[in-house]
Amino acid sequence: MLTARYLGDRAVDTAEAQPEPPPAGQVQVRVAYNGLCGTDLHILHGAMDGRVTRPLIFGHEASGEVAAVGDGVTGWAVGDPVVVMPLDWDGTCPACLAGHQHICQNLTFIGIDSPGALQEVWNVPARTLVRLPAGLRLDHAALVEPVAVAVHDVRRSELAPGDKAVVIGGGPIGVLIATVARDAGADVVVIELDAARRAQIADLGFATLDPTAADQVAWVEEWTGGAGADVVFEVSGAAPAVLGATGLAKVRGTIVVVAIHPTPRPIDLQRMFWRELRLLGARVYEATDFEAAVDLLARGVIPADLLITKIVPLSGTGAAFADLEAGRAMKILVDVRDHS
Amino acid sequence: MLTARYLGDRAVDTAEAQPEPPPAGQVQVRVAYNGLCGTDLHILHGAMDGRVTRPLIFGHEASGEVAAVGDGVTGWAVGDPVVVMPLDWDGTCPACLAGHQHICQNLTFIGIDSPGALQEVWNVPARTLVRLPAGLRLDHAALVEPVAVAVHDVRRSELAPGDKAVVIGGGPIGVLIATVARDAGADVVVIELDAARRAQIADLGFATLDPTAADQVAWVEEWTGGAGADVVFEVSGAAPAVLGATGLAKVRGTIVVVAIHPTPRPIDLQRMFWRELRLLGARVYEATDFEAAVDLLARGVIPADLLITKIVPLSGTGAAFADLEAGRAMKILVDVRDHS
Repeated sequence: MLTARYLGDRAVDTAEAQPEPPPAGQVQVRVAYNGLCGTDLHILHGAMDGRVTRPLIFGHEASGEVAAVGDGVTGWAVGDPVVVMPLDWDGTCPACLAGHQHICQNLTFIGIDSPGALQEVWNVPARTLVRLPAGLRLDHAALVEPVAVAVHDVRRSELAPGDKAVVIGGGPIGVLIATVARDAGADVVVIELDAARRAQIADLGFATLDPTAADQVAWVEEWTGGAGADVVFEVSGAAPAVLGATGLAKVRGTIVVVAIHPTPRPIDLQRMFWRELRLLGARVYEATDFEAAVDLLARGVIPADLLITKIVPLSGTGAAFADLEAGRAMKILVDVRDHS
Repeated sequence: MLTARYLGDRAVDTAEAQPEPPPAGQVQVRVAYNGLCGTDLHILHGAMDGRVTRPLIFGHEASGEVAAVGDGVTGWAVGDPVVVMPLDWDGTCPACLAGHQHICQNLTFIGIDSPGALQEVWNVPARTLVRLPAGLRLDHAALVEPVAVAVHDVRRSELAPGDKAVVIGGGPIGVLIATVARDAGADVVVIELDAARRAQIADLGFATLDPTAADQVAWVEEWTGGAGADVVFEVSGAAPAVLGATGLAKVRGTIVVVAIHPTPRPIDLQRMFWRELRLLGARVYEATDFEAAVDLLARGVIPADLLITKIVPLSGTGAAFADLEAGRAMKILVDVRDHS
């Protein structure tokens, strides 16, 4: 079977590998689509070389169908349409014992710490599978994983209907958070530097702000009747955005840090204190978030066709990253069945 | 009557003033004791000159007795022993309307934004009074305000019985937080640089760590069976302490920033993300915190005699700050009735 691999030093290749039958407790998925994301880009850039073994078959945003079922697995049959929640926890660490398996202290993230979805058939623990409803297209279903991230972030924020939410950063995750927050009953504004992205986001019906042109604080004050935003999602990864986020939140408001900030960032603790703000880290998702994400896609809430900029064959994986790096694409899917 | 005033430029004097009868809705308190705190030191250092009018009769940690009752005030009689919650809110801003009057967007902090307790009689809004039980000494009652800060911080942390809590910084507020947290059922360790303070804190039965000697992360890991602390209180105001606090907290743990950090501080957002941590700002107190603080003092939970380093006459106010600056005192009370 064909696989796509990260080799190190910004190189991706495709290579043949021998498929293995699923071990006991696992299921073999015939992968249809796999989305590429910012984490994959981090891997490509070598930022995670201390963590990943090379060559690495990567990819963790996959849809597909059950191809084979290992010993001891019940409830799954060949042909079932599925997505994979790519988390494998130990079940024994303090975090797992406290019910936070999704951020297990010894978490294996499948596609980073173990082989991922960019292979024709992929063996995964049966408990990672989430069933898809009839009628949900497999290309759209490849968005379940990033939608689940957004669902998790919104759920963690405890956003309530009628809340006003600010999303800083209008990339794929920012747009998904805005969409999930709106579906949960919030008014949303998205702050985004790139004019083309702002236009796309405005087309989805969201208010947008250009941070270089608008006085964000004054705009949010006006928008919220002098209160400040209930929730601010920091999705940009930019240091000035984190520093400014506290200035947008209401008394007892919440800031969810979604973006990865590899180095410590200055935070306005005086404002945190003055307004009794709450800053929350949010990471990956839980099974309930995956199920909610499947539902959102099945209900047509997610603008999947707008988000999926293009679909490339497995051999196009390396080139797709150039488009992502250049900011020319929201989401690129790899059609793992396409060997052209 | 005699008053103590901040004049600007690090100067404090005592001066005569004409007492006024309490206006409608207010109560006149005959002040017994007033504690001096870090905020008063900030005022003395000129750090709040942009906010305070000079000369300022300062002081906001007072105990005393009702001396006179203004028109329209019910429920209070001359001689009632009281403390004053020194907050005056507008009741109309978004924060007040959301129920967060204690951090009103236009809060008047009595003793900073309006005249405080370092005067023989002090007129305050009737709603700021909190009744003292018979038998609670007025010198001990002067600790109600800082104890209420600690109660608020612990309540905000949502600390639960059996939790393990780290207090970074063993000054008066740190010791009070440790005491309140222990009374709430937590195991507590206090991290403090100063050896003399560590010895005092150890005498109160707390575990202590010298941050220059101990590997705090390893110590907390060991202490918590590899989990990390449930709650970390940052009371030191030191930038390295804030940066390190995230490393001490468990998955989904809470860090409460109690200390004032006048400039933005680097925060390890990678760790915030990785462990889904929660960073909370906490400011002043609510009426329920004042009532709980009175109860803690009445029950003898607070080591009042250990915390009160000395009691000085009103004329000793200026000199007392020198002791506070030198770190030679935990808490100094001014006996406002003593004009020696």
